[in-house]
Amino acid sequence: MRHLDKNWSFINEGELTPEGFTFAGVSAGLKDSKNKDLALIVAPKGSICSAMFTQSIVRAPCIDICKERINNSSGCIRAILINSGQANACTGDVGIHHSYIATAKIAELLGINEEEVLLCSTGVIGVPLKINSLVNNLPKLVSELKFNNLDNAAEAILTTDLVAKRISIETIIDGRKIKIAGIAKGSGMIYPNMATMLAFLTCDVGIEKKVWDNMISIAVEKSFNAISVDGETSTNDSFIAINSGKIIDTKFLPIIQSGVDIVCQYLARNIARDGEGANCLLEVLVEGANCTEDAIKIAKSICNSSLVKTAIHGCDPNWGRIISAAGNAGVNFKLDLVDLYIGNYQILEKGRLCQYDSKRISYFLKTRMQGKYLEEDTVQIKFKLNDGKFKGTAWGCDLSKKYVEINSEYTT
Amino acid sequence: MRHLDKNWSFINEGELTPEGFTFAGVSAGLKDSKNKDLALIVAPKGSICSAMFTQSIVRAPCIDICKERINNSSGCIRAILINSGQANACTGDVGIHHSYIATAKIAELLGINEEEVLLCSTGVIGVPLKINSLVNNLPKLVSELKFNNLDNAAEAILTTDLVAKRISIETIIDGRKIKIAGIAKGSGMIYPNMATMLAFLTCDVGIEKKVWDNMISIAVEKSFNAISVDGETSTNDSFIAINSGKIIDTKFLPIIQSGVDIVCQYLARNIARDGEGANCLLEVLVEGANCTEDAIKIAKSICNSSLVKTAIHGCDPNWGRIISAAGNAGVNFKLDLVDLYIGNYQILEKGRLCQYDSKRISYFLKTRMQGKYLEEDTVQIKFKLNDGKFKGTAWGCDLSKKYVEINSEYTT
Repeated sequence: MRHLDKNWSFINEGELTPEGFTFAGVSAGLKDSKNKDLALIVAPKGSICSAMFTQSIVRAPCIDICKERINNSSGCIRAILINSGQANACTGDVGIHHSYIATAKIAELLGINEEEVLLCSTGVIGVPLKINSLVNNLPKLVSELKFNNLDNAAEAILTTDLVAKRISIETIIDGRKIKIAGIAKGSGMIYPNMATMLAFLTCDVGIEKKVWDNMISIAVEKSFNAISVDGETSTNDSFIAINSGKIIDTKFLPIIQSGVDIVCQYLARNIARDGEGANCLLEVLVEGANCTEDAIKIAKSICNSSLVKTAIHGCDPNWGRIISAAGNAGVNFKLDLVDLYIGNYQILEKGRLCQYDSKRISYFLKTRMQGKYLEEDTVQIKFKLNDGKFKGTAWGCDLSKKYVEINSEYTT
Repeated sequence: MRHLDKNWSFINEGELTPEGFTFAGVSAGLKDSKNKDLALIVAPKGSICSAMFTQSIVRAPCIDICKERINNSSGCIRAILINSGQANACTGDVGIHHSYIATAKIAELLGINEEEVLLCSTGVIGVPLKINSLVNNLPKLVSELKFNNLDNAAEAILTTDLVAKRISIETIIDGRKIKIAGIAKGSGMIYPNMATMLAFLTCDVGIEKKVWDNMISIAVEKSFNAISVDGETSTNDSFIAINSGKIIDTKFLPIIQSGVDIVCQYLARNIARDGEGANCLLEVLVEGANCTEDAIKIAKSICNSSLVKTAIHGCDPNWGRIISAAGNAGVNFKLDLVDLYIGNYQILEKGRLCQYDSKRISYFLKTRMQGKYLEEDTVQIKFKLNDGKFKGTAWGCDLSKKYVEINSEYTT
């Protein structure tokens, strides 16, 4: 067991999932491979759901169905069906029709209302769902539903991610054990048109809809909305969070918020680290800003810069590109107050170049590019504005030739 | 002589430059190579200057000096000194001091007021100007000033661009010959920290300051502000336009505007085509929008998308990435009205997939990637919203492994 903060610890074995929730993941023949491609999360009666979806004008129909159902049911959602293989975006009326068929069938099998079922799809754009394979495999999927069965669900939602992304954490509040679990997939766009971020969070403490909405919104700003692989937003991006269980005293809500933050940030960091062709996780901390929003804007601008990302890939402590990217964030700051660090190496102090050994920094970056996944492979850039009290973090990855290779492969 | 529209023609030989202006370009030892690195443009008395500069918070001191002098003199500028080799950005008080020394010296040599001289620098960020080499070579630079000497100036402002960018055009209005000439450099970031766009335009017809400001602003929105190599803005980006000569009847101003537009778009397209590692010019036309701004936003979003750029590089007619990028432009549109073309091949009609031969499109893209510079190497994407009367165009290039290679080379 590893402590994450003064309240929360990682769970690596034993009971991984929050009380009352069940999970399943099977192969339904939606992918050309025999890999798992259909997942199901079932929540207890009385669960409360909050969600955030892609801001893109071009959306898959499942996004609109999710939004409508969460809204109509005031968040009382019982099941989330997730398929990989086909994103079912830009598939016209057929796509809408298929989405309704899938959710109606799973509702029937679970004995719940169709309006309480959500659907998320990821995979190739413009290709209709293999609806027959999907429907035929729903009974098998339901029969596999089990407490603790998180890993199979985490595996089934992947497209071309290199690693499954799963986290379970626990705490004791007032003598009661509370768990939060999350799974996610990122954008490993090895096959054309795939570029979806999906993440799902479950929590076994009861929290009312408005409070939960607010907690999720706070957590997303500091996690999924603060990562970038290539600045692209997909047609199907979704984050869905469900809580269910006995209500706790509101004085403990800050502890729950920190748990939700931990899970979201862990999944977000994993998605960034597993970006196509990436060799390291890029973590940019901005401190001393006038507000959190400004800090995150600058951090994202640095993380998003192709020139910073290629420099990191080349193990090049190219500070000019970092401040240039910061300068383009649309936030006012005073260069002559800025302190800049790459790893532990200080580059600028109050806007002036420090004496630094660029060969040593380059060597440090090289070790990071070959480090152990998510432990010794993080390159941290610290950008202190020294002008206020607020801070923000963003995550990305290096930009390699492999990214170009992956994304320029022929479909034809 | 090639006709550009009903009024304007290209000039390829003979008198290339507008009346009254002189140009020079020499090697002053600012670059490690022996290439030209110092240019000068001198305008006649009574000239009117408009300019637009980088929006970045992190700017070179020459940008602030230019802004101040154009403002203080109401645009009465007589000379522009341009150096390559050092961007002189993030160089503190030394950088400011050097900028003033350079402009004072050139003013003295030309016998004009220091306040009438502008300075533009491009090259490595964070490295001070080689001010002694620069100042020592100013007399040679002034002695080289000549009418028609545009090519030497165009060459001296380059950093790592592969080709010089120069255009001269002419028309006859009311029996009077009028010329507009422009030079530019783009962002060929082969050496670290270089990423500057510079462009200069001269015109031998007198146009008052306010009208000229407006003409330049219109032209820039449809040219330099509509290109993207990698979404980066530099510390030193500048466009300066000077006119000088006899005033013409205001009824002819639309002709002058179209000439200014032609020159700016030609230079902008050249900069995009000469982006690092590029093999083709990507031209995105958006039609049928509710306003020009929306059309340009969508066109830029498509041009800026790493996924679209890598797909084009891979000769992959990956329409899903194109509509996905359009969906993220922050502009509302109806997908079921959209017509999409790659080259002459229609992909979508009213949002529905057409029957198309993806192998033929892929072959077409391959021929474009190997085509003749700026003639047969343009990939045009047409995106019709069919929802309004406005249109806009943006330009970019493909994203290749070479881009990553160029930008991840060691400085250390």
